[in-house]
Amino acid sequence: MLEEVQSGRVPVGEALERLRTFPYESLGFARVDNHRALRKGFPEVVFCQGKTVEQVVGVVRALAGSGQTVLATRAGRPVYEAVRSEFANAEYSEPGRALVVRNGETILPKGNVLVMTAGTADLPVAEEAAVTAEVMGNKVERLYDVGVAGIHRLLDHLDALRRAHVVIVVAGMEGALPGVVGGLTDRPVIAVPTSVGYGASFGGLAALLGMLNSCASGVGVVNIDNGFGAGALASAITSLIGEKG
Amino acid sequence: MLEEVQSGRVPVGEALERLRTFPYESLGFARVDNHRALRKGFPEVVFCQGKTVEQVVGVVRALAGSGQTVLATRAGRPVYEAVRSEFANAEYSEPGRALVVRNGETILPKGNVLVMTAGTADLPVAEEAAVTAEVMGNKVERLYDVGVAGIHRLLDHLDALRRAHVVIVVAGMEGALPGVVGGLTDRPVIAVPTSVGYGASFGGLAALLGMLNSCASGVGVVNIDNGFGAGALASAITSLIGEKG
Amino acid sequence: MLEEVQSGRVPVGEALERLRTFPYESLGFARVDNHRALRKGFPEVVFCQGKTVEQVVGVVRALAGSGQTVLATRAGRPVYEAVRSEFANAEYSEPGRALVVRNGETILPKGNVLVMTAGTADLPVAEEAAVTAEVMGNKVERLYDVGVAGIHRLLDHLDALRRAHVVIVVAGMEGALPGVVGGLTDRPVIAVPTSVGYGASFGGLAALLGMLNSCASGVGVVNIDNGFGAGALASAITSLIGEKG
Amino acid sequence: MLEEVQSGRVPVGEALERLRTFPYESLGFARVDNHRALRKGFPEVVFCQGKTVEQVVGVVRALAGSGQTVLATRAGRPVYEAVRSEFANAEYSEPGRALVVRNGETILPKGNVLVMTAGTADLPVAEEAAVTAEVMGNKVERLYDVGVAGIHRLLDHLDALRRAHVVIVVAGMEGALPGVVGGLTDRPVIAVPTSVGYGASFGGLAALLGMLNSCASGVGVVNIDNGFGAGALASAITSLIGEKG
Amino acid sequence: MLEEVQSGRVPVGEALERLRTFPYESLGFARVDNHRALRKGFPEVVFCQGKTVEQVVGVVRALAGSGQTVLATRAGRPVYEAVRSEFANAEYSEPGRALVVRNGETILPKGNVLVMTAGTADLPVAEEAAVTAEVMGNKVERLYDVGVAGIHRLLDHLDALRRAHVVIVVAGMEGALPGVVGGLTDRPVIAVPTSVGYGASFGGLAALLGMLNSCASGVGVVNIDNGFGAGALASAITSLIGEKG
Amino acid sequence: MLEEVQSGRVPVGEALERLRTFPYESLGFARVDNHRALRKGFPEVVFCQGKTVEQVVGVVRALAGSGQTVLATRAGRPVYEAVRSEFANAEYSEPGRALVVRNGETILPKGNVLVMTAGTADLPVAEEAAVTAEVMGNKVERLYDVGVAGIHRLLDHLDALRRAHVVIVVAGMEGALPGVVGGLTDRPVIAVPTSVGYGASFGGLAALLGMLNSCASGVGVVNIDNGFGAGALASAITSLIGEKG
Amino acid sequence: MLEEVQSGRVPVGEALERLRTFPYESLGFARVDNHRALRKGFPEVVFCQGKTVEQVVGVVRALAGSGQTVLATRAGRPVYEAVRSEFANAEYSEPGRALVVRNGETILPKGNVLVMTAGTADLPVAEEAAVTAEVMGNKVERLYDVGVAGIHRLLDHLDALRRAHVVIVVAGMEGALPGVVGGLTDRPVIAVPTSVGYGASFGGLAALLGMLNSCASGVGVVNIDNGFGAGALASAITSLIGEKG
Amino acid sequence: MLEEVQSGRVPVGEALERLRTFPYESLGFARVDNHRALRKGFPEVVFCQGKTVEQVVGVVRALAGSGQTVLATRAGRPVYEAVRSEFANAEYSEPGRALVVRNGETILPKGNVLVMTAGTADLPVAEEAAVTAEVMGNKVERLYDVGVAGIHRLLDHLDALRRAHVVIVVAGMEGALPGVVGGLTDRPVIAVPTSVGYGASFGGLAALLGMLNSCASGVGVVNIDNGFGAGALASAITSLIGEKG
Repeated sequence: MLEEVQSGRVPVGEALERLRTFPYESLGFARVDNHRALRKGFPEVVFCQGKTVEQVVGVVRALAGSGQTVLATRAGRPVYEAVRSEFANAEYSEPGRALVVRNGETILPKGNVLVMTAGTADLPVAEEAAVTAEVMGNKVERLYDVGVAGIHRLLDHLDALRRAHVVIVVAGMEGALPGVVGGLTDRPVIAVPTSVGYGASFGGLAALLGMLNSCASGVGVVNIDNGFGAGALASAITSLIGEKG
Repeated sequence: MLEEVQSGRVPVGEALERLRTFPYESLGFARVDNHRALRKGFPEVVFCQGKTVEQVVGVVRALAGSGQTVLATRAGRPVYEAVRSEFANAEYSEPGRALVVRNGETILPKGNVLVMTAGTADLPVAEEAAVTAEVMGNKVERLYDVGVAGIHRLLDHLDALRRAHVVIVVAGMEGALPGVVGGLTDRPVIAVPTSVGYGASFGGLAALLGMLNSCASGVGVVNIDNGFGAGALASAITSLIGEKG
Repeated sequence: MLEEVQSGRVPVGEALERLRTFPYESLGFARVDNHRALRKGFPEVVFCQGKTVEQVVGVVRALAGSGQTVLATRAGRPVYEAVRSEFANAEYSEPGRALVVRNGETILPKGNVLVMTAGTADLPVAEEAAVTAEVMGNKVERLYDVGVAGIHRLLDHLDALRRAHVVIVVAGMEGALPGVVGGLTDRPVIAVPTSVGYGASFGGLAALLGMLNSCASGVGVVNIDNGFGAGALASAITSLIGEKG
Repeated sequence: MLEEVQSGRVPVGEALERLRTFPYESLGFARVDNHRALRKGFPEVVFCQGKTVEQVVGVVRALAGSGQTVLATRAGRPVYEAVRSEFANAEYSEPGRALVVRNGETILPKGNVLVMTAGTADLPVAEEAAVTAEVMGNKVERLYDVGVAGIHRLLDHLDALRRAHVVIVVAGMEGALPGVVGGLTDRPVIAVPTSVGYGASFGGLAALLGMLNSCASGVGVVNIDNGFGAGALASAITSLIGEKG
Repeated sequence: MLEEVQSGRVPVGEALERLRTFPYESLGFARVDNHRALRKGFPEVVFCQGKTVEQVVGVVRALAGSGQTVLATRAGRPVYEAVRSEFANAEYSEPGRALVVRNGETILPKGNVLVMTAGTADLPVAEEAAVTAEVMGNKVERLYDVGVAGIHRLLDHLDALRRAHVVIVVAGMEGALPGVVGGLTDRPVIAVPTSVGYGASFGGLAALLGMLNSCASGVGVVNIDNGFGAGALASAITSLIGEKG
Repeated sequence: MLEEVQSGRVPVGEALERLRTFPYESLGFARVDNHRALRKGFPEVVFCQGKTVEQVVGVVRALAGSGQTVLATRAGRPVYEAVRSEFANAEYSEPGRALVVRNGETILPKGNVLVMTAGTADLPVAEEAAVTAEVMGNKVERLYDVGVAGIHRLLDHLDALRRAHVVIVVAGMEGALPGVVGGLTDRPVIAVPTSVGYGASFGGLAALLGMLNSCASGVGVVNIDNGFGAGALASAITSLIGEKG
Repeated sequence: MLEEVQSGRVPVGEALERLRTFPYESLGFARVDNHRALRKGFPEVVFCQGKTVEQVVGVVRALAGSGQTVLATRAGRPVYEAVRSEFANAEYSEPGRALVVRNGETILPKGNVLVMTAGTADLPVAEEAAVTAEVMGNKVERLYDVGVAGIHRLLDHLDALRRAHVVIVVAGMEGALPGVVGGLTDRPVIAVPTSVGYGASFGGLAALLGMLNSCASGVGVVNIDNGFGAGALASAITSLIGEKG
Repeated sequence: MLEEVQSGRVPVGEALERLRTFPYESLGFARVDNHRALRKGFPEVVFCQGKTVEQVVGVVRALAGSGQTVLATRAGRPVYEAVRSEFANAEYSEPGRALVVRNGETILPKGNVLVMTAGTADLPVAEEAAVTAEVMGNKVERLYDVGVAGIHRLLDHLDALRRAHVVIVVAGMEGALPGVVGGLTDRPVIAVPTSVGYGASFGGLAALLGMLNSCASGVGVVNIDNGFGAGALASAITSLIGEKG
């Protein structure tokens, strides 16, 4: 643009205006915003909690209408039904309360993400993570109810562990599973504490502290019940597959 | 005694006085106090923390002098050296900071107690538990540094687990080991959180919460760093071996 | 099996497959899983909280249909009514919200478990513990509302304490009862904090901390409101009765 | 005074000045400050923690020099020695770290205060309470090491309980003693949690919560380790003895 | 009784039985239980929270039927209406949710209790305290909404403070009022934190901590929202009025 | 600059480079950084905690050498002595552990800041606040030891309160003073909790919560012991004096 | 008045009565109460939470009837509708749940207040702050949804930041925005944590701690969700604009 | 091996013994243990905290002697000096307290890791992370002291951010930096809270909660002060570079 100014093709006033109107684009990170969906298959995300059905539908309409894939998390069934009446191809994970409206782009597969849970009650958070990782272009394998109180159930499935590039481990109560898994694999492990439990689980605090104190290396922790965050982090990691070092 | 009153051998005044002076003996639980050392080999216990060397030695002298086995916990080396100068048979566990002065009684073996730790830093608490269980008449087996981040180290030692009547599991950091062990055995598991760790271990709180939230059944928890309590509880349990149901 | 391989009766491929399909059975602990109901009368347990009536009934049907005794905890009355319509012999403890479907086996009595509460509001948790211990083959005695603020009520019942092999003490608010009981008996004491209380009881935290800090030895603590855990631990302990040391 | 203004004996300006210079005396509570030592024997109190020996001595000198009894709490031995070199009649409680310099007034006895502790380690806080209550004119009886884990030791001393007008109960760890005592007496019970303990006592928090949740009525709690506060509250209560209702 | 045994009027067997049936009466504190209502006008108390209307009515009927005054706390209006249909003289404090059924005894006035609140929202807890103190025979004065953010409202009412033998101060949010009041009076101050507030009040924790840390002496704290406990403690204190020192 | 590019006086490459090298200056907030000392008398600040004497002296030398006033907080006496050997005009507040090296500029007075403390132990934090406000060009008045337990001491000094534009209130323990002060003035009140206290003050947490829950409006809170932050906020506020609305 | 007494125009009795009836007016701070609405446009405020519609309407009627502007916070729509039926000019902010009934006075503008939020869910708290600041006579600019995870959105609006005299920053979750804003402006920043979030946000605790620990100077924090407090503090600050230093 | 059994080359007994002696190797994860250093350049790690110099040297000698690269964390200077006397090529990072003894292998570069800190006091933790990542075969770039209170310092370095495959962000106090960085990059961000701070930072808790609640996606958190964990997780992530999806 500066060359255009020098050559007179762009007047100073207009150049000034353009600099003013995209100050952060000149910093180089705004382009990422504009193009990342095309480049990486990363969809726009809508966090539905605390929004009315109408608000969610409005946002989904705007985003999907512009040709982007949309992921809506914490979406109840009424949201899904309202969206489906406009977008017939809307997909919905009831347990994960996640809604996806895909557009026609073809996303190249990035990597394999294994999503594990300690108990069956951790399933909703795990599904949110799984759907998130899938819609961002990953192949997701699920391995549920393999908590440490029955360690043999976990050891039966070491093959699944070996296939994964990244492992998401979802657990409430004592939160011990990520530490065990982290000792069985060299892959990055993303630990998701859940608010599942009672008594001294204190809404997920016990699981959170357990995961942060894990003696295994290679474990990163996200917020309690944050399945979306785990899926997004997993996808940020698998994006490195195939890059040059 | 009432018969003696009726027959006139004991005057009313004296009977009244005797009732007044041993009100709780008449309730039946004081006898336990008087005779339990003989019956069960349970020693007198001295908690040294916050006492001077002189105070500890005085108490040990009084107890050991009356022919009882004495266990002193949280005893530093100066305490040991002072006691040994009077009682040549004093035994000392440096890592467990536990001191024992045995008397001549022969204690019948009660049961097998397995003491496990997740890491090497949990050793002092484990030794306090082990010495306590031993001096109370149990056969103690030690299995240290078998934390869940290297689950295969634990699985190598299932034989030891099968030999135990009670298992004491000592762990800091995430406190996950008791849950795994509880899933591998039907025996009672006593979980001891330790203050080992840093950051979000919060002085053993993370381990404590992890153990309380264990999904395995058959696990009871004692206070942070309370090796003595674990050993005493284990011994109360093994006392049932051989009793009639 | 290895002998069969050597003799050629089992081909290598099949042996490999069998090793693969029961890796943890080869470790020796799976047999426990398969046979423990027969050996110890330990039933299968269903945790109903967070499951629909249909899901619970499905699981109960599968388990009871295979001839096993089933214990369902945190079971509301609708669950009971649905189960009873299929299993006429279903028993239900309304206060303890515990459901049992027994099969025909005869369980040899294991031991005497005394279940105590500090207040009447602790009754539901106590009943869950009592039913659990009973269905696992123990004789259970109940002693309710004997909190420390009226210590004479407790002292009236020392006989019950003497009859017990294991004592389960359920208390909310200040959680002081297990410490007092632990000083009156040499038997193992299992302390169960409850969320009963208000204000600074903080959902059972005060009772939990009180129990962990008990000065009496021989006390193990389970999670807040975890009546099932207390009953199961008690039963693991009474299983030692009659064993050889 | 207003009458003096009306009559002209006091000029308006002076009246205004007097109103300005004793605004809170006109509210009636400043007289209490000036005269309370004479009326009730309540001494001036110096909290030594965080003050140098010189600072403490300076304050004591100023107060004692004006003829008042002085109580200094959290006073180390160096403070005592420095004060004694000026005031030969200085008294010192080493365990309670409390220093008293009495003046010649004769204080009429107010009431009987019983100070109890659960363990021997609670003694320093108990002594601070006892010395405080004594110097404020109460007869103090001590009953130490009667914790609930050996309830018979407490029951041996019900006479002492019956003699007291107010009971101060000092306890660390689980803090259960005040609840038991509160159930044995109709007198006001002042509960003092101490920071004695380890692990999940969290610096006295467990004892504090236990005391606040006590099921016995008639119990008031002061801050952790606040022996002085307990003694002063006890004395405020015994001041009511002999008043008319 | 022992004399009767000696004289033969009471056989040994019967004496033994009688000792067994009132073991704690022999300890001297049971008489208090039996006679305290007559001696002090202390009523029986029913804590309604967690009980059904039927249960409460049953207990009230049993107690009131035996001629005792009954106080029921945390009693909803349905409880009141059910009780009134049986006991026409039932009194009810709607804001304090406290129900009283008096019998004919005449209680001598004990003392003056001032109940203060920082805000209007603290009124229910204050009323529970006030009704409790009244039914136990105290003259109660109320002074509401005099929080420290408008200190002049408090200073307007120093007369009320001077009239009181005991002051109950009820406050949520910051819990600062007891400290200010404690500095204005020499009388015992009972501080009641309430769960009134939002945000960082954490259900009354902020008020509780504020009161425990009060710099004024003569302040005792009860549990959050425990109006009954404050009233009962106040009454235990005023019982000392008129006694001999 | 764009005009210079257009006119050819600045080549495109250089313009590009200049844009790259001051990206945030083009956003308009960097000028503030460069000129604020001149415009407002705001000094550079060095936080000494965790730095060696050498490191602090090096930073002070660099800053003071360039003609700026320097404020060093949490500075021990060795730091002061080292700085004074280079800068003879260094000033030091021993209680506030604050060091100032002024340069020759004349700062116009901004406003009046009143710094109050509840107790004498809060003095160090108060002094840090006072020195900070002074060096930033404010007139500071000190009013120490006017805690709410002796409310008359505060009421004696309402004149000082009326003179202030901003009031900084420093308090530990219960943290009640800011609420009282906030009710006595319309001026902004900055509340500083201190870690002064013991027991349930939990290192300043009680004071912090008390201040956040203050019922008085117009109160803002800073971090525990953050005297500097309070002084800086006060100065940001007084900077508005004399501006146009 | 004293002169009137001297001259006999006011009898002593009446003067005494007048002194009694306004004791705190003589202290000089009551005038503020009486006249502040006229002088500063500060309205009377009603906190509706926990009050019935009838109670709120009664209070509003009393205040508005006496000619004062009234601000009611935490007011639901039913409150608004009831008030509007009496006061047709009632204004209502649905998102901020704030109700205003203005009287005819003309308030001179005080200053510019910028209210920012990190996310859209923080809007209700922000609106409460904005309406409060407006009704107290400030010009309010809103800048919502500029959280730190998209820092360019914030940097786009530096002009708004430059226009403000005071900045109110409302944020839940991590609470990082005030620290960033505090680094971009020299103006006072008022940080309002909100309870928006889930998991480890612990009802606003995470945001609160983040704000208190902000490394930027010039930041004061109010209670969680306390939009009113932020608006009132902002207005206390802008009142200084135009005053003389 | 099974083929060898079938062919008779390995007797059944020996096969059984071999199966017994490597039960977990048959599960497939032990190979990882044996070969991971060769395959990935992952060194053996020694955690020195709580170990004597002699113990550390012994472990280092054993590991380094077998030809492996050794990383020792939390290593004081005495440890370094003792190790260097045996291994002349020992490298030491004084600020990061990390010691490395490399062996001759050539590790292929894996990826670029950017280590950022909010303040200079976070440097030790950052250095531990940096050294860990480097010795595991990554190219590490450091960017220190770019906290959010001076956001322009961060924005000056967007190039560094663009070069990184993984970003490690180390911050104490409010812990806001990872959220800002996570919004500026699509790369995985590893957040490390530090215990740097005072007051309400509560030993790193504030930073930890801030990071867990970050609104930016793609952020994983490790334990407080766990620089090693961050470096190891970063390296597990960069190991994916160049793999096939």
